[in-house]
Amino acid sequence: MGELSPLFAPERVAVVGATERPGSVGRALVENLADFDGDVVPVNPNYDEVCGLPAVDGVGESGADLAVVAVPAAAVLDVVREAGEAGIRNVVVVSAGFGEAGGEGAARERDLVALAEEYDLNVVGPNCLGIVSTPVGLNATFAPRSAPAGSVSFLSQSGAFVTAVLDWAADHGVGFKDVVSLGNKAVLDESDFVAAWGDDEGTDVVVGYLESVEDGRRFVDVAREVTPETPVVVVKSGRTEAGAQAASSHTGAMAGRDRAYEAGLREAGVIRADTVQDLFDAARVLAGQPVPESDGVAVVTNAGGPGVMATDAVGEEPLSLAEFGPDTLDRLRDRLPEGANVYNPVDVIGDADNERMRAAVDAVLADDAVGSAVVIAAPTATLDFADLAVDVADLQARHGLPVTTCLMGGERARAADDALDAAGIPNYFDPARAVGSLGTLARYREIRERERPSPTTYDVDREAARAVLERARERGRTRLGVEAMPLLDAYGIPTPAGEVVESPVDALEVAEGIDGDVVMKIVSPDILHKSDIGGVKVGVPQEEVYDAFEDLVARARNYQPDATILGVQVQERVEMESGVETIAGTNRDPQFGPLVLFGLGGVFVEVMEDTAVRLAPLAESEALSMLDGIKASPLLSGARGREPVDRAAVAETLGRLSQLVTDFPAILELDVNPLVARPDGVRAVDLRLTVDPDNL
Amino acid sequence: MGELSPLFAPERVAVVGATERPGSVGRALVENLADFDGDVVPVNPNYDEVCGLPAVDGVGESGADLAVVAVPAAAVLDVVREAGEAGIRNVVVVSAGFGEAGGEGAARERDLVALAEEYDLNVVGPNCLGIVSTPVGLNATFAPRSAPAGSVSFLSQSGAFVTAVLDWAADHGVGFKDVVSLGNKAVLDESDFVAAWGDDEGTDVVVGYLESVEDGRRFVDVAREVTPETPVVVVKSGRTEAGAQAASSHTGAMAGRDRAYEAGLREAGVIRADTVQDLFDAARVLAGQPVPESDGVAVVTNAGGPGVMATDAVGEEPLSLAEFGPDTLDRLRDRLPEGANVYNPVDVIGDADNERMRAAVDAVLADDAVGSAVVIAAPTATLDFADLAVDVADLQARHGLPVTTCLMGGERARAADDALDAAGIPNYFDPARAVGSLGTLARYREIRERERPSPTTYDVDREAARAVLERARERGRTRLGVEAMPLLDAYGIPTPAGEVVESPVDALEVAEGIDGDVVMKIVSPDILHKSDIGGVKVGVPQEEVYDAFEDLVARARNYQPDATILGVQVQERVEMESGVETIAGTNRDPQFGPLVLFGLGGVFVEVMEDTAVRLAPLAESEALSMLDGIKASPLLSGARGREPVDRAAVAETLGRLSQLVTDFPAILELDVNPLVARPDGVRAVDLRLTVDPDNL
Repeated sequence: MGELSPLFAPERVAVVGATERPGSVGRALVENLADFDGDVVPVNPNYDEVCGLPAVDGVGESGADLAVVAVPAAAVLDVVREAGEAGIRNVVVVSAGFGEAGGEGAARERDLVALAEEYDLNVVGPNCLGIVSTPVGLNATFAPRSAPAGSVSFLSQSGAFVTAVLDWAADHGVGFKDVVSLGNKAVLDESDFVAAWGDDEGTDVVVGYLESVEDGRRFVDVAREVTPETPVVVVKSGRTEAGAQAASSHTGAMAGRDRAYEAGLREAGVIRADTVQDLFDAARVLAGQPVPESDGVAVVTNAGGPGVMATDAVGEEPLSLAEFGPDTLDRLRDRLPEGANVYNPVDVIGDADNERMRAAVDAVLADDAVGSAVVIAAPTATLDFADLAVDVADLQARHGLPVTTCLMGGERARAADDALDAAGIPNYFDPARAVGSLGTLARYREIRERERPSPTTYDVDREAARAVLERARERGRTRLGVEAMPLLDAYGIPTPAGEVVESPVDALEVAEGIDGDVVMKIVSPDILHKSDIGGVKVGVPQEEVYDAFEDLVARARNYQPDATILGVQVQERVEMESGVETIAGTNRDPQFGPLVLFGLGGVFVEVMEDTAVRLAPLAESEALSMLDGIKASPLLSGARGREPVDRAAVAETLGRLSQLVTDFPAILELDVNPLVARPDGVRAVDLRLTVDPDNL
Repeated sequence: MGELSPLFAPERVAVVGATERPGSVGRALVENLADFDGDVVPVNPNYDEVCGLPAVDGVGESGADLAVVAVPAAAVLDVVREAGEAGIRNVVVVSAGFGEAGGEGAARERDLVALAEEYDLNVVGPNCLGIVSTPVGLNATFAPRSAPAGSVSFLSQSGAFVTAVLDWAADHGVGFKDVVSLGNKAVLDESDFVAAWGDDEGTDVVVGYLESVEDGRRFVDVAREVTPETPVVVVKSGRTEAGAQAASSHTGAMAGRDRAYEAGLREAGVIRADTVQDLFDAARVLAGQPVPESDGVAVVTNAGGPGVMATDAVGEEPLSLAEFGPDTLDRLRDRLPEGANVYNPVDVIGDADNERMRAAVDAVLADDAVGSAVVIAAPTATLDFADLAVDVADLQARHGLPVTTCLMGGERARAADDALDAAGIPNYFDPARAVGSLGTLARYREIRERERPSPTTYDVDREAARAVLERARERGRTRLGVEAMPLLDAYGIPTPAGEVVESPVDALEVAEGIDGDVVMKIVSPDILHKSDIGGVKVGVPQEEVYDAFEDLVARARNYQPDATILGVQVQERVEMESGVETIAGTNRDPQFGPLVLFGLGGVFVEVMEDTAVRLAPLAESEALSMLDGIKASPLLSGARGREPVDRAAVAETLGRLSQLVTDFPAILELDVNPLVARPDGVRAVDLRLTVDPDNL
């Protein structure tokens, strides 16, 4: 389990601040450690013994390898230093009064971090509930109830939620290996625990409740390593605040904070649960059942209605109803009576006894097309649920495929609990939940099988790009438009022929170099909606270019006399007819760094919010997957009788943009809008970006 | 409760086919009737008594007012006739071997229906589990367990599901008034029971599991009357089969069977639940809590994390976080310690005792901005859940606002069950479920407050429309295109100026009557994709109209020599620039009759599947609501700096189309595509329809 394993497997635990005062945290900690396999040493200079255990005066005398600190905040730093001096590497700071309290507390927290560095300490907290590790009977929390043993390890940014889950879990088929209440995450954060549990033999699944991620990039890097072997499921709260944050570009507005988390968790291979129920449903099935090798589900039921409900649920998950082979159909025909349905969903009908049910489940689990199965039973006089549970557990083990059940009933269904719990088979009253659990396994299979390619690196002219940004800095500008098109040229992104010019004569010269009519646009950082003021002319023939220049400048002056006018862009007219207008953008998330956004232009992004967001830098395969990640994707592949656009060129553009924004932290936001995608390639027609000159 | 009330409140029940044979349905029925308040009469000529009750030889001698029939199928009709002759009006046919068995069984079912008509019988089933009514202790089913008493009435198309629910409900806070297993619905169907329970004092909520609706229009009519007073919630399975059905028009493909159900249930004011869990969560809260008067939710919690989760869930429901008034904030400041949060979500913090929690809940429930509240508590040493439950129940009753709770824990939370169950307050471990229940109440409030306007009737020329359809019939055509544009003219739907002509001379004459260039299209039922073969010319100046006619015809002949060519359409060119292309369509559902579909044109319908579907005929307000029912709706209201389109004109067009399709059952499907919506009105540019000439 790496360097954190001693934290969860100490031999001797010091409780600093141990006391017998009723209702105190110090007493609860000592009492909760009663079942610990190792030694417990109360530390309190005012007592000779606490709860029957001999006490010592200072943590330095405890001989412990884990110190749990529950003294007033002002005394914590001294205790931690003493622990460090005594060679105690693992410290859980339960005490509050740190960063969460602001002011003095924040300073105290900084000092705590410094101490942790000085003594190379694993510090949990401060302001936390503590930690649990069931293999050694360690309940170093002040929660009234410890965790039932199991193979799920659980981290939570809310201590109260830990208390609630520990109280609840015992009755709900979830067992834990380690539990940690993260508190203020001053030193150890979610990344540390995910990494540690990824190496831990005893942990089959990691689940978490997070309100934030401390270092998004590190979390992604760590979790990417862990998730192919150990599934990680989290509730990340603050979901529906997405979009609340104002931002200056389309990309900024669309790729709100929650989109960044979404992209980050996706990249990390973390399964995101929306609710507590989903979180622990996922934990149960991932801890208890193997990962299927295919998405085909077999449904076996003794009741038509619930079978139909399960079929509906299959359609809502990344699953399909398996199509049985002829051998399976023969076996089923052989064992089922007339009136039964041998096709999927298999209906053994209401008078089925245990033997018939068993035969049907056995037959479908033997079918090559079946990746997983759900067994459904309504209560009948002929079927014993306890025996059915034993049969299903046995068949699950023998065939090695994941199985969930929906043995529908109250008391009657509880008779099945023991056998199903022992076999790790989740059982729900609702067919949709039983099928949803198989859906979770399918999602995890996709994560486990996902390729994790390195970012693609393209040949670019980095110096030319830097020069463009330098020029902007010299001129004191932070918002750039088409005048920065050479940035795209430098990174090999195709742009229409054209230039920004400052005189009608230059305009004409540029137009003469372009075949056909041109498009002319006023270029000004102060005029955002150029079309609205007549600042855009489409299809200008050469003979009109000179006058058009003067007209555009006049209109702009007229509209906003003090506007900075950088010139007029004269650009090749891009044929739109065979093209699809897309938008490619980037922005920068405080946690996850540069993001890339892709969507169809205009309405699709603004009204339909149909976009794909990924972390930069991108591998080309990831960029391609973004094209499939939008609902309007068929439009790129030739829907409605159109020729398909050059998807590879779109993906390459996303890759090059991701490289650009990764290379230059100074680029805060950037929109290419539209990026016209055609069968013969792409053209970046317009550009807008925001730069931070100090970051260049 | 109307004419079905005696069915659920009999005085004397005959069990036809009563027997003592172990494991038999006849025995289970008699045993399950042991708690019935009235008399039970076994009917079996082979016994003098059954299970200690004196038996009679025939149902005619039973003196019963309800007969439950569990004899072999072949004997059922004689029994039912005998019951009818004896004046027994209510018959539950448990026996199978009817329509579900095909062939002979189907004939038997038809005979059963005839008997029911002859004797004016209320027949439940056949092939059903039976009925339950708790006020009179009636369990006329062969399920092993009866229903706990309550105010939910439950109908199910799956008998097995009834068995499962009865077994489960007792432990899950759901109590029933009446339960019916619908079986084959030969005589009584869901509409009858919804109507009956709508009039029933004892029924607060109707829940159902349906696989089909027998007569969709009747169901809508019945449920529309009931749902303003009594909420109806159903799981309608077969959800995810939508779209599987092939159809010849856009409207047909999009408004698949499930869309019809969706539209029908919406119109009926029925809340659709996707899962069993959602169904009974809805039942609990609707039976136990009042309907809120506003969507503002107050969250009170002793733990930050679960409070954030609840806030997330509020964002997923048709709810908002209430903003407290100054009085409430003062009261909270007065009662809560430093570090607590008096703003919504209110955090009373972890050391809160029952008194503080109570004060906070009391304060928020007194706030005018609060329509409902969720009370959340993690287990702590200072808070007693049982006492908290009593407080919450008391405050809920005193303030009269709906409250749900999330008292998080296992054993500890169960201490709260009694007080909460007695008060009808749903309690869940998952904050999202507690909030989801408040969302259900908000959905029901919208249904209760919904106006139910009569369909709008427009002045139309019905005879002119009939003439167009007659002409099609005479020519033996079932698929019509632009040649049927006069149909739209007759129904007052604006179309561009133009005509279908059969000669170049006529073409020129029509073009001369139109201002500006024209659009010309080949008109042929055999050529579907006219653009692909060059069969459409846009912007044809007058001087080219003659030649264009000949060219279009030549292209069509060349492409498909045997195609029927009806002529060439010469049409005013509709200015698209300021317009939005929409699609307005209708089709006909076997259950729910004529439907109207609306969406934006092209991709939005085909790729984004962004459409609104309603039952015809429409009131104008309903038609307007369809415009808001699509995601792309902002495009109609002037998004992206555009002028808003004439929404009233679009709605009127939908209303007129709905009238057309209601007036003429012969119109099976009809697409107006595009219907161009502009600031100054609409233009129906193209038309395609399928007619059934036999229905004219």
